[in-house]
Amino acid sequence: MTLDRRALLSASAMSAMLAARVGKAGAQTAASPAAPPPVTRILARYLVDARFEDLPGAVKREGTRTFFNWMGVAVGGSRHVTVEHAVTALSPFAGKAEANLMGRHEKLDVLNAALINGISSHIFDYDDTHLKTIIHPAGPVASAILALAQHRPVSGRDFLHALILGVETECRIGNAVYPSHYDLGWHITGTCGVFGGAAAAGKLLGLNEQQMVWALGIAASQPVGLKVQFGSMTKSFHAGRAAQNGLTAALLAAQNYTSDDAPLEGKDGWAQAISRKVKWEEVIGQLGQRYEAALNTYKPFACGIVSHPGIDAAIQLRDEYHLAPEQIAGVELHANPLVLSLMGKTAPQTGLESKFSIYHCIAVGLIYGAAGEKQFRDAVVKDPGVTALRGKITVKTDAAVPPQKCDLVVRLMNGQILTRHIENAIGSLEKPMSDQALEAKFTDLADGILPTAQTQQLMQLCWNLEKNDDMASIARTAATTI
Amino acid sequence: MTLDRRALLSASAMSAMLAARVGKAGAQTAASPAAPPPVTRILARYLVDARFEDLPGAVKREGTRTFFNWMGVAVGGSRHVTVEHAVTALSPFAGKAEANLMGRHEKLDVLNAALINGISSHIFDYDDTHLKTIIHPAGPVASAILALAQHRPVSGRDFLHALILGVETECRIGNAVYPSHYDLGWHITGTCGVFGGAAAAGKLLGLNEQQMVWALGIAASQPVGLKVQFGSMTKSFHAGRAAQNGLTAALLAAQNYTSDDAPLEGKDGWAQAISRKVKWEEVIGQLGQRYEAALNTYKPFACGIVSHPGIDAAIQLRDEYHLAPEQIAGVELHANPLVLSLMGKTAPQTGLESKFSIYHCIAVGLIYGAAGEKQFRDAVVKDPGVTALRGKITVKTDAAVPPQKCDLVVRLMNGQILTRHIENAIGSLEKPMSDQALEAKFTDLADGILPTAQTQQLMQLCWNLEKNDDMASIARTAATTI
Repeated sequence: MTLDRRALLSASAMSAMLAARVGKAGAQTAASPAAPPPVTRILARYLVDARFEDLPGAVKREGTRTFFNWMGVAVGGSRHVTVEHAVTALSPFAGKAEANLMGRHEKLDVLNAALINGISSHIFDYDDTHLKTIIHPAGPVASAILALAQHRPVSGRDFLHALILGVETECRIGNAVYPSHYDLGWHITGTCGVFGGAAAAGKLLGLNEQQMVWALGIAASQPVGLKVQFGSMTKSFHAGRAAQNGLTAALLAAQNYTSDDAPLEGKDGWAQAISRKVKWEEVIGQLGQRYEAALNTYKPFACGIVSHPGIDAAIQLRDEYHLAPEQIAGVELHANPLVLSLMGKTAPQTGLESKFSIYHCIAVGLIYGAAGEKQFRDAVVKDPGVTALRGKITVKTDAAVPPQKCDLVVRLMNGQILTRHIENAIGSLEKPMSDQALEAKFTDLADGILPTAQTQQLMQLCWNLEKNDDMASIARTAATTI
Repeated sequence: MTLDRRALLSASAMSAMLAARVGKAGAQTAASPAAPPPVTRILARYLVDARFEDLPGAVKREGTRTFFNWMGVAVGGSRHVTVEHAVTALSPFAGKAEANLMGRHEKLDVLNAALINGISSHIFDYDDTHLKTIIHPAGPVASAILALAQHRPVSGRDFLHALILGVETECRIGNAVYPSHYDLGWHITGTCGVFGGAAAAGKLLGLNEQQMVWALGIAASQPVGLKVQFGSMTKSFHAGRAAQNGLTAALLAAQNYTSDDAPLEGKDGWAQAISRKVKWEEVIGQLGQRYEAALNTYKPFACGIVSHPGIDAAIQLRDEYHLAPEQIAGVELHANPLVLSLMGKTAPQTGLESKFSIYHCIAVGLIYGAAGEKQFRDAVVKDPGVTALRGKITVKTDAAVPPQKCDLVVRLMNGQILTRHIENAIGSLEKPMSDQALEAKFTDLADGILPTAQTQQLMQLCWNLEKNDDMASIARTAATTI
């Protein structure tokens, strides 16, 4: 499959229809050099016209893996105190109990379920990642449309198509404003994710082109998320609220609630407000030919993606040399500066905070040979052995080191020096998690939440997504009875 | 009252307690020159500690007028197609029918009612204005807490206090980022309004200091609104969604849903992401001494505030010279450039669009001697006489002309030239609408929606806000039975 996905990356042919669209945009630009192309309308037209039959097999396959991974993390996160607080706070105001919460027994209205499932799926920082933008694509999209599928019947085919289009939309818009937008402080999963939720829900609602423009427009007015929230419960709120806002936008647009016709590109529009640079070609170039949705990746470790090369190196050294923590005198990581700017917490106090500590990540990799959700629990964060090893780790950053690479140096008490270079970490596009590894991750996450047989059934339903007659059956299977 | 309000502007005394707070902030700044003071915490502490008894009478009086005016516009806007679409789209998902919609018979859950009433109150662009920031303060605050008052009992005193604190919060934060934030494209009513809704709802929910920090933090992650939406239904959505987001933030914080502790001022926080300049002293200086909430103004005309000097001049000339449209050969307005950048539509096609056309505003002022909601209906926009006069109007802008001033020149068919200079338009802080004028506006807005006796009763309840035992009674009185 890796080969298929690379082929998609280099696809350069463009259908006459799409060329005509982009050509029209180009002409408009030529007429007035400063004017952007009609980005929102071009995107809306693509979303409305897109047909499931035209999707390449590799894109459908990656869409299925995207949904599978989302379901695992949504079930896995469902009992976190963050989710408990949100359910307690909002249940008194929830509407008709149509939609299941993954891994829980409560049912809420569709909009609140989108919010809660989005929170669940992001709370562990263990979800999927579009590496070019660090967007976590599934949360804002799958959470919106699985809830919607319990309000009106949706087939697996239509669901998969909408999911792929939603992911495509948010990642393309993310590409257009990354890194400027991200550097300003925005949490790109929430700010771009809202477009993904709107596009996917809009597709399932059968919006026409004008309504799809409005859905994207109402979404544009509701970006969610700031990086300052990393380490607090509000980070996962971003993914859920993006799903809820996107779904709200599509529902309003379906009733002809209007927005501006150029909300993304217009004067005083989204891009102007939210980024200092924008590359519109990233949104409208090669639509239907080049798929960002095919470039999704899944985390083998339950923490920020920039730490993964370091964790991979730590686990490799531990396993290869059968290291015990008491043998280790010092550890030095050479990595990209993003590692410290995103995950520089030296003394985390809680499980949530430890996910933003490269020191904790490396320590648990060396001690446990794993960095799954269990290694980021409060008890592990406070464990004296973990705390002691964290204190022995230093990080040297160098902008010349790409984010996907690193070198780890472990100095042992006996003076021996062990080193490991990582070219691409496990879970990267070049070294993707296998379906089997995704199943192991899913099973580990669902452990203690769903009975084993139910987990197996749910995984089968997710793998067979495309053949499903009624997606509500999957939502029900992901819920508990008490 | 004008004198009282001016006195508040110049108040410079600061209680020892408040000086200590700001001093602490200052000390922190001194220790690290680049570090901002702990703005969110200082603001949260003020909000939690504030006592109704300490409010100056003029502030309470202006708070009451703020609520009175909000109620009039919320009832008046309630039958607009924008509101119909939103109610149709979202009712299927609404929860327990606890809260009334102003001017309508439906009841929705508290969060959806906050959204809809916020939309109603802003749809006519006829609401209140904090002139320093062009924030329309009441929509995001009153809509949130009147709905909340139907979920748990709230006295008029507590309501008025929360309303004032909410307005204070959003306007102070607006002052801190205006004009940079606004110039980037953000619709400041929605982006700052969310803090107002959160603060006011948080006060009524009895949040402690830490919870209030979280409420402001969850609000910070949900700014709403772009100026590109002006002229579409999404503009009024901003005010309603800000109310709903603020209320959601407070409800989550009340259940200990956490955010970062420095969401406004922290690295990768709200101010960094959303503005290129920030003046923190505007948020935390003279809290409890200087009241932005005392500086609220109310629109005598149902359109953008920057057009008001021109309309005032047009009406004065019309009334003074008994002008008939057919006498007019040409009209020239000399005004601040904001007039064209915000309201430059030359050929509006709908009522909504005409509110962003200075040409339409001047035309109806000259023809009807009024620019109330009735003058912005579709039929008036398409009236041949209005269209003809719009075409005779030119606007010359000059940055040296302050936004509150203008000169209007009307050239008659007989060669006569009439001119009028406006120093401060009616409805400005210097020339405020009287209580009687507010009543006339309210009555005009409620005409055809509420029976006359009910309108009278509702106005009395609003004026007597402070003495009300249960604010739910006001919400009920503002609703219809069918």
